[in-house]
Amino acid sequence: MVQLIDGRKAAQTLNEKTKARVKFLKEHGIIPGLAVVLVGHNQASERYVRMKEKQAQKLGIYSVLKHLPESISEGELLEIIATLNHDEQINAILVQSPLPDHLDETKVIAAIDPNKDVDGFHPTNVGKLYLNLPGPYPVACTPRGVMTLLATNQISVRGANVVMIGKSSIVGKPLAALLLNAGATVSILHSQTRDRSDFLKTADIVISAVGKAHLLNDTDFQPQTVVIDVGQNLDEAGHLVGDVDYPETTVNIAKITPVPGGVGPMTIATLMQQTVEMSEWGI
Amino acid sequence: MVQLIDGRKAAQTLNEKTKARVKFLKEHGIIPGLAVVLVGHNQASERYVRMKEKQAQKLGIYSVLKHLPESISEGELLEIIATLNHDEQINAILVQSPLPDHLDETKVIAAIDPNKDVDGFHPTNVGKLYLNLPGPYPVACTPRGVMTLLATNQISVRGANVVMIGKSSIVGKPLAALLLNAGATVSILHSQTRDRSDFLKTADIVISAVGKAHLLNDTDFQPQTVVIDVGQNLDEAGHLVGDVDYPETTVNIAKITPVPGGVGPMTIATLMQQTVEMSEWGI
Repeated sequence: MVQLIDGRKAAQTLNEKTKARVKFLKEHGIIPGLAVVLVGHNQASERYVRMKEKQAQKLGIYSVLKHLPESISEGELLEIIATLNHDEQINAILVQSPLPDHLDETKVIAAIDPNKDVDGFHPTNVGKLYLNLPGPYPVACTPRGVMTLLATNQISVRGANVVMIGKSSIVGKPLAALLLNAGATVSILHSQTRDRSDFLKTADIVISAVGKAHLLNDTDFQPQTVVIDVGQNLDEAGHLVGDVDYPETTVNIAKITPVPGGVGPMTIATLMQQTVEMSEWGI
Repeated sequence: MVQLIDGRKAAQTLNEKTKARVKFLKEHGIIPGLAVVLVGHNQASERYVRMKEKQAQKLGIYSVLKHLPESISEGELLEIIATLNHDEQINAILVQSPLPDHLDETKVIAAIDPNKDVDGFHPTNVGKLYLNLPGPYPVACTPRGVMTLLATNQISVRGANVVMIGKSSIVGKPLAALLLNAGATVSILHSQTRDRSDFLKTADIVISAVGKAHLLNDTDFQPQTVVIDVGQNLDEAGHLVGDVDYPETTVNIAKITPVPGGVGPMTIATLMQQTVEMSEWGI
């Protein structure tokens, strides 16, 4: 019987800690402040942003939504970011991706004060992670959430063979860096990889962040594999599924994060955690 | 019969191009300028710095050596770097590692203007490499030199299985990033790795950057492996050797960079190349 790694429970535990921390900070005159910048009317983005706002309010975090028109110019957007960089009530800034095509996302992210870059996407913060510099600095939230999930489920990564499928800058690469920093042997696979099975044969932990339903199934793994499924896909019936199919009685997968209810809830919980931490760094 | 990848020849070709570029730039009123900061009297460091200075002069690059006393304070060193950051004759700054223990190398490197960080060690430049942002920005010289060596020897990395042994911030990690950006499937191995042979069995290219004589030999590889040996070690007899032993008649290694005469010469040649390029970027 497969063991499910319960992301909802882990997120709830993390949120409770964050809430208590906010309460403590407020007693000491500090109110964590998150600004979310949303441009245009992407439906998925609007939903994510609403979830983030709602969660921030629930935990007592001050949150501001800058919902900007699709037609905003890059100069205007950069000005708004500059204002938020100097806003003392705001210690965490998040620009919801994707931006409309006429806006250069790289340039916009680079304009965020690295000390307020709660998504950990600014080149300086990415570099610090990659160099494994001592913190504090923000780290991409989904990868950090996965590390928390592994730790709270007593899944050791030091010396483990980890296969990371996907090399995006939002999940694959920063998660590979965190794992490497924690002592894992990491193989990074992607669309150019010749033969995935070469790597899956010796993997202790497989992380799929491809975004493709039915990409992998139980037979692809060696016995006792831990699978972290970061995929969020709609299947043929319109249901939310991950990248990995598995029967209830798995032969090879020992533990897996279900979709929904696995990695997903950890992303927003980690965003909240990091918002609050950043209000404490005093940088 | 093993085929040797000739780093001396590749470095010479690169140096000739660099020299021609310097001549061209001088005709247009631009003189590339390199500042090397050396603290104390580490013998190996002094030798490297002399080699760098000599090569710069040979190519027509203006070069300055700031040889500072062992006892210099961090504040004094940071002031010297600030002065170089503002010196219009200098477009490339290099702080020779290692620094004496009382100086925080991370802090010193972070003080270099990222646009003058010719070693590509500044977190912002590391982050850009890791994010695979469009350039120009400086990249660590040994890794970039290895990529040049692979390209000039028609060794394709796209889709290849590459095993990177070593996860240092100077070689292993930035080289893994360059390879990943170029479409390779990359496994990063290190001292915590459980079983190196799992990975060597399916590798097309193995890069060793451990710094340990006799770490690997021909029998460790699968047939037709390309080996890039970044190790620089002294063996029992006091000879400079790499990490990999191999007989002249190899069974498995198809091509290898010898030590000396392989990767070594590419590092300084790439440093010179990058110094000249940075004088052109106008940033």
